[in-house]
Amino acid sequence: MDYVYGPGKNHLFVPGPVNIPEPVLRAMNRNNEDYRSPAIPAMTKNLLEDVKKIFKTSAGTPFLIPTTGTGAWESALTNTLSPGDRTVSFLIGQFSLLWIDQQQRLNFNVDVVESEWGQGANLDILAEKLAADHSHTIKAICIVHNETATGVTNNLATVRKLLGLGIVCASPKALEASKSAKSVRVFFDWNDYLKFYKLGTFWPYTPSIQLLYGLRAALDLIFEEGLGNVIARHTRMGKATRLAVEAWGLKNCTQKEEWYSDTVTAVLVPPYIDSAEIVKRAWKRYNMSLGLGLNKVAGKVFRIGHLGNLNELQLLGCLAGVEMILKDVGYPVKLGSGVAAACAYLQNNIPMIPSRI
Amino acid sequence: MDYVYGPGKNHLFVPGPVNIPEPVLRAMNRNNEDYRSPAIPAMTKNLLEDVKKIFKTSAGTPFLIPTTGTGAWESALTNTLSPGDRTVSFLIGQFSLLWIDQQQRLNFNVDVVESEWGQGANLDILAEKLAADHSHTIKAICIVHNETATGVTNNLATVRKLLGLGIVCASPKALEASKSAKSVRVFFDWNDYLKFYKLGTFWPYTPSIQLLYGLRAALDLIFEEGLGNVIARHTRMGKATRLAVEAWGLKNCTQKEEWYSDTVTAVLVPPYIDSAEIVKRAWKRYNMSLGLGLNKVAGKVFRIGHLGNLNELQLLGCLAGVEMILKDVGYPVKLGSGVAAACAYLQNNIPMIPSRI
Amino acid sequence: MDYVYGPGKNHLFVPGPVNIPEPVLRAMNRNNEDYRSPAIPAMTKNLLEDVKKIFKTSAGTPFLIPTTGTGAWESALTNTLSPGDRTVSFLIGQFSLLWIDQQQRLNFNVDVVESEWGQGANLDILAEKLAADHSHTIKAICIVHNETATGVTNNLATVRKLLGLGIVCASPKALEASKSAKSVRVFFDWNDYLKFYKLGTFWPYTPSIQLLYGLRAALDLIFEEGLGNVIARHTRMGKATRLAVEAWGLKNCTQKEEWYSDTVTAVLVPPYIDSAEIVKRAWKRYNMSLGLGLNKVAGKVFRIGHLGNLNELQLLGCLAGVEMILKDVGYPVKLGSGVAAACAYLQNNIPMIPSRI
Amino acid sequence: MDYVYGPGKNHLFVPGPVNIPEPVLRAMNRNNEDYRSPAIPAMTKNLLEDVKKIFKTSAGTPFLIPTTGTGAWESALTNTLSPGDRTVSFLIGQFSLLWIDQQQRLNFNVDVVESEWGQGANLDILAEKLAADHSHTIKAICIVHNETATGVTNNLATVRKLLGLGIVCASPKALEASKSAKSVRVFFDWNDYLKFYKLGTFWPYTPSIQLLYGLRAALDLIFEEGLGNVIARHTRMGKATRLAVEAWGLKNCTQKEEWYSDTVTAVLVPPYIDSAEIVKRAWKRYNMSLGLGLNKVAGKVFRIGHLGNLNELQLLGCLAGVEMILKDVGYPVKLGSGVAAACAYLQNNIPMIPSRI
Repeated sequence: MDYVYGPGKNHLFVPGPVNIPEPVLRAMNRNNEDYRSPAIPAMTKNLLEDVKKIFKTSAGTPFLIPTTGTGAWESALTNTLSPGDRTVSFLIGQFSLLWIDQQQRLNFNVDVVESEWGQGANLDILAEKLAADHSHTIKAICIVHNETATGVTNNLATVRKLLGLGIVCASPKALEASKSAKSVRVFFDWNDYLKFYKLGTFWPYTPSIQLLYGLRAALDLIFEEGLGNVIARHTRMGKATRLAVEAWGLKNCTQKEEWYSDTVTAVLVPPYIDSAEIVKRAWKRYNMSLGLGLNKVAGKVFRIGHLGNLNELQLLGCLAGVEMILKDVGYPVKLGSGVAAACAYLQNNIPMIPSRI
Repeated sequence: MDYVYGPGKNHLFVPGPVNIPEPVLRAMNRNNEDYRSPAIPAMTKNLLEDVKKIFKTSAGTPFLIPTTGTGAWESALTNTLSPGDRTVSFLIGQFSLLWIDQQQRLNFNVDVVESEWGQGANLDILAEKLAADHSHTIKAICIVHNETATGVTNNLATVRKLLGLGIVCASPKALEASKSAKSVRVFFDWNDYLKFYKLGTFWPYTPSIQLLYGLRAALDLIFEEGLGNVIARHTRMGKATRLAVEAWGLKNCTQKEEWYSDTVTAVLVPPYIDSAEIVKRAWKRYNMSLGLGLNKVAGKVFRIGHLGNLNELQLLGCLAGVEMILKDVGYPVKLGSGVAAACAYLQNNIPMIPSRI
Repeated sequence: MDYVYGPGKNHLFVPGPVNIPEPVLRAMNRNNEDYRSPAIPAMTKNLLEDVKKIFKTSAGTPFLIPTTGTGAWESALTNTLSPGDRTVSFLIGQFSLLWIDQQQRLNFNVDVVESEWGQGANLDILAEKLAADHSHTIKAICIVHNETATGVTNNLATVRKLLGLGIVCASPKALEASKSAKSVRVFFDWNDYLKFYKLGTFWPYTPSIQLLYGLRAALDLIFEEGLGNVIARHTRMGKATRLAVEAWGLKNCTQKEEWYSDTVTAVLVPPYIDSAEIVKRAWKRYNMSLGLGLNKVAGKVFRIGHLGNLNELQLLGCLAGVEMILKDVGYPVKLGSGVAAACAYLQNNIPMIPSRI
Repeated sequence: MDYVYGPGKNHLFVPGPVNIPEPVLRAMNRNNEDYRSPAIPAMTKNLLEDVKKIFKTSAGTPFLIPTTGTGAWESALTNTLSPGDRTVSFLIGQFSLLWIDQQQRLNFNVDVVESEWGQGANLDILAEKLAADHSHTIKAICIVHNETATGVTNNLATVRKLLGLGIVCASPKALEASKSAKSVRVFFDWNDYLKFYKLGTFWPYTPSIQLLYGLRAALDLIFEEGLGNVIARHTRMGKATRLAVEAWGLKNCTQKEEWYSDTVTAVLVPPYIDSAEIVKRAWKRYNMSLGLGLNKVAGKVFRIGHLGNLNELQLLGCLAGVEMILKDVGYPVKLGSGVAAACAYLQNNIPMIPSRI
């Protein structure tokens, strides 16, 4: 039995963890296997090739480390940097804050550039710092692509233009850096992976068999839908959500359009409302999970995650729910207004499902 | 991989098959077992007791026949009637039509009372027939409780008042009838079940192990939510759907309020629209499954099933989808109007989820 | 949680229900779908074609009736015969007994040919009856291919030689018969199916979505292994089991080699042992499910089902378990003797797994 | 579909990953949830309490770090030690070797005590080192409890007697050490966990929802079987395996009885056989996964893992398989001999399953 029962589907609209497609759940529903049999290396080889397609790289080297995002961050830092190295890091919300904390505890010399929460990274300051860095003391620029606490997406293309390089999965340059990086690491060490990649057995320690099969199914689904279509679907849902927020007369925590995120929208509530109450109501009355406001924006924003295995009608159910909750907590929303605004846009923009034409 | 892929959840809003709760799917996800071991009879014993609670009967005898609804109909008829017996049957839509066809092919003498599709059973005529039946030739009254083709729910309480009896699962009276019923049956024969009920092994032939565990999980969920709450949730969703239909300026196929169904709403479309096109669009563009109009109402109605493991936000996603589809096919709907009408009602009537207060 | 917990795998060795392959369980682990969408008919069309390959027929017409084996029997009988028709039926064990009971209750004129339990159908008598039947009163010959109560497989090729015809799924001849057959049936009526086959929607009533996907996965597995290899695997396991029984110094209930079954072996126990005690011990101490002796052979035989998703090492675990149980109940078995005999045969006959060479 | 198909169950007998109970697989077969809802902390609180029961501690503090065993090692080391600290580490096989490598790369001063592979840790040398350590330079003693490469279990009770302390999960002493430990860590840092334990939200970063539910189900199963019974079952299977090895005339890689492992047996093969060929055959012909010999014992041993969700009949199937494989590769085994030896012991020692008496 589930831990806390509620009828119907739970409407999961946090920016993570996200909804998992049923074929992926099915693929993971299996007993363990010997990861040293010929089957797992053969499968891993294909997975690594296919993951590179998602990163749109042919030169990169992907690592499938059995950990969460926080561990992946640590892996990226410790494999490319040495203690004492200077990093320029942008503090724009809770997740960039946590990342900066990690960098500091890993003993890097972190040059923090702070912006008001709701703004993107200040790239003018970055340009200044780079210009002033005649002796090349800046070893890394740490920038959260999508700050889920405030719904801000930073423009990495501009960052890259400033730098003239591209870092995706582990670029050849990152791999090169990992040879001389002096940060202490074992579990996260790319070199152990590379050793086993060369041997063709691929795994320095036991992988999660279930996650490998889940990744296989997830990649198949992405290729079936088309990576471009997946991205377009997220863009569409981000736009629809923002139109609803506008129709409700509420403000987006993200201060400029150029920073709008396709995957999460942080909504500012009027001062007389505690946004935590909205999240609580969603869960207690409507079987919906919304994202809390964190740290500096606690109580001030609630967040709608619109990413993962979601489609437009699911999102519209969420938006209708948010309208009722806003009314519940005393905000004078016009019921149907946000849904109508989202529908007006979506009805003109949702494509036919290719496999069903 | 799924047969025809679409991103996100499929929005299943046909009046059957219905959405299955995840705990039930999980419970069914298991290998077979020996049904002659002590475990299965012990489990079956409890299941039969608990099924009686759903039928709100203590005197009734439930049968769990491994078949579909059509087979259950046949079971009910052949176990209580003999060829040539007179039945009064009400023809009010596609499913009552199919049932009457079954009765005729099983060689009963079927006295058909037809109403216009969209109306309920004509109980005045039933009263007349009963009054005129001095020699008690009427052996059964066959009335579809919920005609899903037209969204009509018949008032069984009134039928019972006319008759002075209650038929639920197999009432003692039905069981008595099964002893003398001369209809030919083997697979559906209740007497084989009764023999094994007495032996305490319960199964005259191999049951579906998976369905037994699924039933167990389903009953547990119903008891956890509370049967009254389950019914209230369906009533609420029926009401919300009808309010949306009204807001769209469309007519309900069900002609009078007394016949409104809690589980399905058949919506009449204007003559210049083919309702099949609505169902097709729902599936091809919005990953939603709506019910077709059948037989006499083909092309004229589409149906929204609002039953099973569903909650209000799921329904609102469906209603928002229907609005976009109506616009797609040229009906001048005001986007958001139906959702707003449903929300205005629901926001005042959805209770807190008891386990989450 | 499971109903009656035991550590490790349950060893399921009854002749039914049988072990389900994990990919089939995974395929069935899904929510419902609208069976009227384009996806289900497209899938059903392929399923029907592929099922014909399993029946090795191109002229036959398969029916996927949502029922158990008992219902399938009823379907075959009522669609081809009329009340009063003469059938010749062979009574050789519990399952042929149940089938004859069904034929009698469906009002056929059943000419029963009984053999001692443990023998196959007496085909000499059949030859005599056919020779004497100048006026062609025999409308059907009903012969259980594999009598699981006694582990007897009848030689259908010989039966066919006597008759000069082939009955597989519904042969064209059987379909022809269904047009004039007067047996009352609705749920089981092939004609309803045929009507929907012609329409291309395939289903006269709601199918089990889960079972369709399960069938798809099962067919894929059979084609991947190769139907011939599936059959050879069963033959191998039947042979291995009989060698073990012989090594234990016990007799096979099946009296002649020509009747040995590839899928189940019924083992006779000495008179001082109650075979039900063996089955009970298997379940209570070893987490194994063996088949009981039924009716005439109750207490005298226990049955080892060796069919479905099983391989040789699973069978050897079962045989080792049976040896311990035999010792438990006082039979002076030499531990390891049956396993050794089975291994000596299997070690020379198990092929490499083709996908792993 | 599976990656590399084989009929029947895969017989998984590697010392890890191990067989997962079906109820655990079922529990993990679920969509994500918001880990910040009230449900997950409530569940986590109970999990932590119940995990302590498995560690048989009331004073300890468990950490559920989303990582594999290698990560858990790193967590234990970096949270209690500082770079330069002296550790005494015992090298007795591949897994202790990997652990020592980790300690060295984490910059501890590792005092390695090597034994021949197949022997346990040399505790005499430990006693000498401790006696000589007047200035308390030894900060930790690193001893692999169960060296799965050679099937050696070290006697931790003796180690504890030498030391006068008990380390299980994180003892109060270990927690105290974590406050001053200077090893660099973030992802693995216990202090982040402790901070969230205090807040009652429990998770410093996103946990795997699926693994939490799986752990819940696994704990329930252990409590249902009884922790003592789980351990006794493993002891029984270890003993049975060793009896089979002896009956085959082969030697155990583990050199003394006091080091025998309940969970894995490493079997030495004669010099004219390559043990890798045995593992390969098991997989290619019998759908069985055995453990390879690693590093120093590569080609010389194969390993039978007998742990996790296994019962005796599964093990006997494995042993019968090993006998056939030994014959396949030219070793003159007497078929049935190992199974017989194991059965003779098991038949007297397997208890009734308590829930089935």
